[in-house]
Amino acid sequence: MRMRNKPWAMDFLSSNDDIVDVESRYAGRMDEFFETKQPLHIEVGTGMGAFITELARRNPHINYAGIELDKNVMIRVLEKVRELELANVRLVLLDANAIKEYFSEGEVDRIYLNFSDPWPKKRHEKRRLTFRSFLRQYREIAKPGGELHFKTDNRGLFEYSLVSLNRFGMDFHEVILDLHAAEPEGNIRTEYEEKFSAKGNLIYRIKASF
Amino acid sequence: MRMRNKPWAMDFLSSNDDIVDVESRYAGRMDEFFETKQPLHIEVGTGMGAFITELARRNPHINYAGIELDKNVMIRVLEKVRELELANVRLVLLDANAIKEYFSEGEVDRIYLNFSDPWPKKRHEKRRLTFRSFLRQYREIAKPGGELHFKTDNRGLFEYSLVSLNRFGMDFHEVILDLHAAEPEGNIRTEYEEKFSAKGNLIYRIKASF
Ligand SMILES: C[S@@+](CC[C@H](N)C(=O)[O-])C[C@H]1O[C@@H](n2cnc3c(N)ncnc32)[C@H](O)[C@@H]1O
Ligand SMILES: C[S@@+](CC[C@H](N)C(=O)[O-])C[C@H]1O[C@@H](n2cnc3c(N)ncnc32)[C@H](O)[C@@H]1O
Repeated sequence: MRMRNKPWAMDFLSSNDDIVDVESRYAGRMDEFFETKQPLHIEVGTGMGAFITELARRNPHINYAGIELDKNVMIRVLEKVRELELANVRLVLLDANAIKEYFSEGEVDRIYLNFSDPWPKKRHEKRRLTFRSFLRQYREIAKPGGELHFKTDNRGLFEYSLVSLNRFGMDFHEVILDLHAAEPEGNIRTEYEEKFSAKGNLIYRIKASF
Repeated sequence: MRMRNKPWAMDFLSSNDDIVDVESRYAGRMDEFFETKQPLHIEVGTGMGAFITELARRNPHINYAGIELDKNVMIRVLEKVRELELANVRLVLLDANAIKEYFSEGEVDRIYLNFSDPWPKKRHEKRRLTFRSFLRQYREIAKPGGELHFKTDNRGLFEYSLVSLNRFGMDFHEVILDLHAAEPEGNIRTEYEEKFSAKGNLIYRIKASF
């Protein structure tokens, strides 16, 4: 998700520090960032945030943290959170590579990955968000039995991830190889999901636990 | 695979007892059925046998046992084995439900399942050849680290099997969600594979080990 660079993006995010954490102020004490203590679900790589904001609207009794690397993109999520007045969404400007430094052990109930960058070249395997070094970090911050929900239209990445999650010892709960064939009622489409589904791509999903 | 019933099928198979075992004569001593002692791979539900006979032709240093329930179908496999003069294929008329009574522990190096009956209704789950009770039997007859290779075009059965194999503790080696997109050189198409691929269905494959 490349967006035009906004030179003022960092200042803007910083000045919205009731919703966005740009400098890991809440690392290790995320619960203080939210108004209410309740289960914590996170999305890694929110993009423009259609998914996490709609999910949060439907589930007021869960806290959602949106992790995103790109400050220009994060502005769009912030705008949605403001517009919908969502008290249960907070945003963290962070590279997922540092995720276990941000959250404390066992703090997270569920992790969402949606349409993560595929990094198709074998030499970029380590950058895929389902590579074992990421899974190791997720497992550390997840509660025992915590869940990972992953959607993508990228066949290669999904094939890879099925093997990677399995070899990491995760328990599969559900695998769907054509999510829109009989779209589950609860499914919330992401921006990429809309775009790639319209192009005729199949959408894959897995739910698994650590 | 329903074929016209041939009243003479049983007599015909019995009279070809150098290739076909209809009454479990070789149970527990399969190696005596073959001319040469070498690794043993089996296919469960051979159908008309295009797959196992071509595989055996390409790999003379492996013994192949074809398991099939339907005597009318098995005649077609027998004809192919005769025609190609394959010393390394033997056929066993058997219900896979009794497979662990036929083979001895750790005897089998690899198991192939191709386009197994999908049994889509939940109440028929136990009949699916990737249901855990079957996996338990396969594991018993397989060598430690023995492999299961499974192909199908049936999305529901494949989704189910990914979860079933994972929950059974099997190690995934490879998952392919569109086998014919870049067809691997070694792939041998089965009769059902040709038929369903021509209809435009995707072909799925997994290789996993116990
Ligand atoms: C392909 S987009 C998908 C966006 C959104 N999830 C969707 O489905 O529409 C991937 C997003 O992940 C973000 N991203 C990529 N690598 C990341 C990382 N290591 N840490 C945090 N975010 C990352 C990108 O900036 C981008 O916004
Ligand atoms: C759908 S056909 C597929 C045939 C072939 N493998 C192919 O791909 O063309 C399934 C085959 O499995 C056989 N079969 C089904 N259940 C079986 C069982 N429990 N034991 C042995 N064979 C079985 C059927 O008789 C049939 O020939």
